[in-house]
Amino acid sequence: MALIVQKYGGASVANLERIKSVAHRAAKAFDSGNDVVVALSAMAGETDRLIELANRISPLPSKRELDVLLATGEQTTVALLAMTLESIGYPAVSLLGYQIKIRTDSSYGSARIADIDSDNIKKNLAQKKIVVIAGFQGCDSNENITTLGRGGSDTSAVAVAAAIKADKCEIYTDVEGVFTADPNICSKAKKLKEISYEEMLEMASIGAKVLQTRSVEFAKKYNVALHVRSSFNNKEGTMVLEENLITEKMAVSGITSGKNEALITIKKVPDTPGIAAKIFEPIAEAKIVVDMIVQNSLKDQQTDMSFTVPISDFKQAFDISEKTAKEIGAQEVVGDKNIARVSVTGIGIKNHSEVAPIMFSTLAQENINIIIVSTSEIRISCLIEAKYAELAVRSLHTAFNLDDDKSNNVSLYYGGGKK
Amino acid sequence: MALIVQKYGGASVANLERIKSVAHRAAKAFDSGNDVVVALSAMAGETDRLIELANRISPLPSKRELDVLLATGEQTTVALLAMTLESIGYPAVSLLGYQIKIRTDSSYGSARIADIDSDNIKKNLAQKKIVVIAGFQGCDSNENITTLGRGGSDTSAVAVAAAIKADKCEIYTDVEGVFTADPNICSKAKKLKEISYEEMLEMASIGAKVLQTRSVEFAKKYNVALHVRSSFNNKEGTMVLEENLITEKMAVSGITSGKNEALITIKKVPDTPGIAAKIFEPIAEAKIVVDMIVQNSLKDQQTDMSFTVPISDFKQAFDISEKTAKEIGAQEVVGDKNIARVSVTGIGIKNHSEVAPIMFSTLAQENINIIIVSTSEIRISCLIEAKYAELAVRSLHTAFNLDDDKSNNVSLYYGGGKK
Repeated sequence: MALIVQKYGGASVANLERIKSVAHRAAKAFDSGNDVVVALSAMAGETDRLIELANRISPLPSKRELDVLLATGEQTTVALLAMTLESIGYPAVSLLGYQIKIRTDSSYGSARIADIDSDNIKKNLAQKKIVVIAGFQGCDSNENITTLGRGGSDTSAVAVAAAIKADKCEIYTDVEGVFTADPNICSKAKKLKEISYEEMLEMASIGAKVLQTRSVEFAKKYNVALHVRSSFNNKEGTMVLEENLITEKMAVSGITSGKNEALITIKKVPDTPGIAAKIFEPIAEAKIVVDMIVQNSLKDQQTDMSFTVPISDFKQAFDISEKTAKEIGAQEVVGDKNIARVSVTGIGIKNHSEVAPIMFSTLAQENINIIIVSTSEIRISCLIEAKYAELAVRSLHTAFNLDDDKSNNVSLYYGGGKK
Repeated sequence: MALIVQKYGGASVANLERIKSVAHRAAKAFDSGNDVVVALSAMAGETDRLIELANRISPLPSKRELDVLLATGEQTTVALLAMTLESIGYPAVSLLGYQIKIRTDSSYGSARIADIDSDNIKKNLAQKKIVVIAGFQGCDSNENITTLGRGGSDTSAVAVAAAIKADKCEIYTDVEGVFTADPNICSKAKKLKEISYEEMLEMASIGAKVLQTRSVEFAKKYNVALHVRSSFNNKEGTMVLEENLITEKMAVSGITSGKNEALITIKKVPDTPGIAAKIFEPIAEAKIVVDMIVQNSLKDQQTDMSFTVPISDFKQAFDISEKTAKEIGAQEVVGDKNIARVSVTGIGIKNHSEVAPIMFSTLAQENINIIIVSTSEIRISCLIEAKYAELAVRSLHTAFNLDDDKSNNVSLYYGGGKK
């Protein structure tokens, strides 16, 4: 007997038939003698529909009221699932963010969980009820409804699992787990049996849309083992675990690509001390996150400064840069939205110096020019022309021997424990 | 400067255009220097849509969860209205049942308001915000969401008006006020300028679908003057007031009809003491409300016992009656769903003995047979064949001189004060 949290995403509760299927899966876990908490998203498409409705009122609707509106999405699915469970003979109760309570700060639309009062969940579990909780939503200290941002239901599930000290946290989605690459881009991508929190974080933040980044941070912080799997079949999915618990350590776990960034280059910047601060301070003040930066030295004490920003902030960052360029006497500012970031992620990268050269030579063989390189301890990213993104993913997938469909057979093992 | 509660029904918030119109009306009241509280229903049809969704899961869905589901309807409209107000420059805040708080008992689906904590509303009014409150919903002492039943938003508005001691409570609807008869039945029906709580109660409970009965009881109890009017134009509607405040006292205020009852007759009942108890006790135990009752004595110590029940309880009441009939040795049970109740309502009835004879003779002139008569202090109702209902309403409307379209000119004035 265990305490299990199951989280189901929008595709898994998209209609009454799917909700019925979720009810039967939860009931099966309950029948096996487990205590079961189910966290739900809104029906697939519902959150977008509500945002579109709000945008018909205003392009910038009141953030507080938008959260009140969006919270109806999960309120609907938890009521329908609890009803369905009751109708097939399983005592159930729905709990909304403020009823649980999931206490957050007051950052409407992207609230952070401060505290979870797990008493109400535990009380209902003790009464042998299946507890159905609304993901994505919380409440601040003044009882205002808040939401946690895109994918926030994952975070709700993981945070609740941590708060009630659940034995398992199963994340049910419309994919079968975490893959070595996006199967839509790379047909030879294969499902990973295990992945570490750190790898998942790197991959989540750069385009593997399986889990919200913050939910993985939460899982890592509170050491909640996640099982990412499909609600459409009974196959085992991918375990997201502490690095120490990974049984088969691979040098490279996955190849990802993303096209959410734009490149800005300020040409012929006078290369004097403090010039970088002059360029990036006004951008930071506008709360725009700059990611990759590269400085190419030219002759005559001049340099070209290139950096990437989220594509949604491109226009604003470009305008700021043009202003700065004038002030510092740079030549001109050039923008480029046709770029992609391709990344190789793996806990073995910190021990395997050959990963970077393999990556660069593979891209070179395909005649793909690398604009910028950035690295973390377990990831190497290259900025390239957008049109080569898919080719790059497939080539790197092959180069790192991830194509093999015998999932236990990978060539570059990561032998050691943590350094 | 006054404190105003405005309540808008489902037709008044049926889409974003209508919600915009509501926002402008509330803003206008605010601009005139008033403190404004707006109570809303769900969009027209939304509650029915949600009930239908729940019924696809189960014919008897969990009552608690149904309330969680239904509460999303008002949550959606209050968020959209508050957003709309903010978008046109008026500070606004939405408050849900549990945020206000509207404390109720735990009778899901038909909860009764026990207490309203008005602090949150007052705090927001003091900050010069338009406060948009969700009608229809409350919460019990365990923070469970409850709903107040059909038309519950009226009750929310009146209860809040009473709690915050509002100067006015305006009920905006898709009709222009309370009419002397249903204009769909009687083309000569005219709008009343005023009506007493008592008359409104009698008329609300028997088919004039303008206000929920309970909201009128609340208004009467806390002496909240209601102004029932249309949200589709700026015409004055009908004031619902204490009898003492009615300036033009009419003997008869309105003619109503309803087809929500069915007639059951138990034939040849042995007329012995205690026989009525034997018949009606098992029906009362099934929580079926019997309204009109008539006993026709026959010869040989036998009687025919006829009574009406809500049409939705007909089958159950009929089965119970058949069982009782066997036990007491009655001849047979006959049911009739093709009946209607026609009622004449007016505070003058208690002082004008001629109202009843006029009613009976008018029906007789049209060859309409009266099956049962029931009376209250200010109402006389006759049960007739359903097919004559519309004819009866029109004939009585004419007989009591309500047809005149000069609204101040009625023939039977009620001269006195309260007896």
